[in-house]
Amino acid sequence: MHILNLDANASLPPTKSAQKALIESTSWEGNPSSSHSLGRKQRERLDLARMRVAKAMGGIDKDIFFTSGASEGNRWIVDAAKSLGKLKTYTTSLEHPSSAKPLKAAFEAGELIKVDSPAEADLICATAAHNETGLITDWDEIINLANPNSILVADICQSFGRLPPLPARVDAMVSSAHKMGGFPGSGAVLLRGNAKRLKPAWTGGSQEGGLRPGTEALILIHAFGVAASEIDAMREQNIALALLRDKLEEALLNTWSFARRVPESGDRLPNTSAITLTGIDGDALRIMIDSAGLCVGFGSACSALAPEPSLSLISLGLTPQEARCTVRFSLCPDATMEQIEDAIERLTSLSLSP
Amino acid sequence: MHILNLDANASLPPTKSAQKALIESTSWEGNPSSSHSLGRKQRERLDLARMRVAKAMGGIDKDIFFTSGASEGNRWIVDAAKSLGKLKTYTTSLEHPSSAKPLKAAFEAGELIKVDSPAEADLICATAAHNETGLITDWDEIINLANPNSILVADICQSFGRLPPLPARVDAMVSSAHKMGGFPGSGAVLLRGNAKRLKPAWTGGSQEGGLRPGTEALILIHAFGVAASEIDAMREQNIALALLRDKLEEALLNTWSFARRVPESGDRLPNTSAITLTGIDGDALRIMIDSAGLCVGFGSACSALAPEPSLSLISLGLTPQEARCTVRFSLCPDATMEQIEDAIERLTSLSLSP
Repeated sequence: MHILNLDANASLPPTKSAQKALIESTSWEGNPSSSHSLGRKQRERLDLARMRVAKAMGGIDKDIFFTSGASEGNRWIVDAAKSLGKLKTYTTSLEHPSSAKPLKAAFEAGELIKVDSPAEADLICATAAHNETGLITDWDEIINLANPNSILVADICQSFGRLPPLPARVDAMVSSAHKMGGFPGSGAVLLRGNAKRLKPAWTGGSQEGGLRPGTEALILIHAFGVAASEIDAMREQNIALALLRDKLEEALLNTWSFARRVPESGDRLPNTSAITLTGIDGDALRIMIDSAGLCVGFGSACSALAPEPSLSLISLGLTPQEARCTVRFSLCPDATMEQIEDAIERLTSLSLSP
Repeated sequence: MHILNLDANASLPPTKSAQKALIESTSWEGNPSSSHSLGRKQRERLDLARMRVAKAMGGIDKDIFFTSGASEGNRWIVDAAKSLGKLKTYTTSLEHPSSAKPLKAAFEAGELIKVDSPAEADLICATAAHNETGLITDWDEIINLANPNSILVADICQSFGRLPPLPARVDAMVSSAHKMGGFPGSGAVLLRGNAKRLKPAWTGGSQEGGLRPGTEALILIHAFGVAASEIDAMREQNIALALLRDKLEEALLNTWSFARRVPESGDRLPNTSAITLTGIDGDALRIMIDSAGLCVGFGSACSALAPEPSLSLISLGLTPQEARCTVRFSLCPDATMEQIEDAIERLTSLSLSP
């Protein structure tokens, strides 16, 4: 049976260009931190990727440093913020665990002080779009409310290839290559404006301008740069996905009288639909959908193997039981009407009864 | 001019098998933490690599977690050790900056307490072999001196593909793929015995058994596993390098009356030779060697662009001036007599006079 990948938000398949970029780089040798000819050549390649990624993120190359991915980037932000003292910090209930958990630990340790409004905050950490529902954060509203001196940090993992860049007032952005057509194992953090005050808390080698110790994952970063250079095309593809996503959603809600969209309103990423199948056993549902050859999301992938219901879905008003039977469909950029019709066929054939 | 890579210790060129492994994996899709079919397939691939790397490191798969490289692994060890309280810690002056700097910061903050003998220590962090000179640490002696309850941690980056695995009494080992034929951007930490007491200090997703948050760099890990599966052959190749290394060293010391080997005695990795060219200007030397098409090391690659002389060379008795004019030759596993003769020709033709 042909597998249908409707789980783009967990990990996007690498683009053809990123695959090609990787293949051309397999024989590269040398450490970009070495001063000799092989090292300098690697450094040029690294800096080309830095320009490409910076441009796609809506910034400039000198403001970018590379990480192993957004989990590291989000943790870096929290650790760097802690070194500035007990910052009053505003965050949302829709953050990815890689941001939510370090923030929670810092609140519990009294290293950062949680506040309830962007207007009170020295530091604001908010995702650009919620990975589980596609709900888009109103960053314009946050910017309007924020104090001019506050540090504004956006996790752009899910919005990167799907929405235009955020306004320049956003001081820091955290991205991951494998959510926008590159490969898992690389990501970037952009720091500008007020975020230049963040102090690196991690020591080791002096790579990435002293901000992130560790030899760079150059070949992944190269592929990340190539994917970034085609980000406009990916954004166009994603805009077009809304039609397919709506078709899928409508068909499922029409068939499943016990199902509803989560959240019921609000702007969403064009590729994402979360549907709660009230009264259906979450584990059984997961197995049925998987057996039908469909890959979908249940909570964040990074905690998909864990039994706890999604805290962010609960914050949207769902009960733990409802969170467990909430399915996320997230379309890949190259999804076709034929695939969506196939998915509808397979899904509506499942015998589900609450 | 053909470039000769005599800087294997900074970053080994990827093996042919690792390159092939990478090419076969470029189209893999899915997140190994997802529970669906694509995710499970990725997880199988991850676990195969885990078995291969564990075996090469002299351990078992359940004791391994993957990182972005040894810099991260070394920092993980220090952060995890800090959470056990003020451990009495023994380390050497030959550690890589990725271990030395986090340890120094922990000593300065009073989070770990520095002691001068392995016999007094709760925690011992020692490299298996010094990256700048190839000097091999006497781990048997450390084991003999160590308290049975102490946690023994070895950075095996430079020894991994060059020496047999360390004894099982070594509780933790930190490795990096790009120092043994894989690609930069992945590494592994092995925890067993007393190291099972180390508590993860980093939060985020629950990847790698909750030890290391972040989606795994699967394709790099796959290539790491393939390189690890051929580690015996690489160790054989490295043993054979001693002959070439000795030939190079002898020719240079015979030609350069002002030069001497560092250190003057002690067991070394078979591929590494460090030579101090007393009285020669370090920066000029670097440029001359580079212009001759030779890639060699000056200090750790991660700090090669920094102006400070190597602290570990100074600990071996060199003056800062001597450290600056110390050249590290480190041969790649496939080095040939022809290349070494070419290198000797180019090096002895340089006009050097103190």
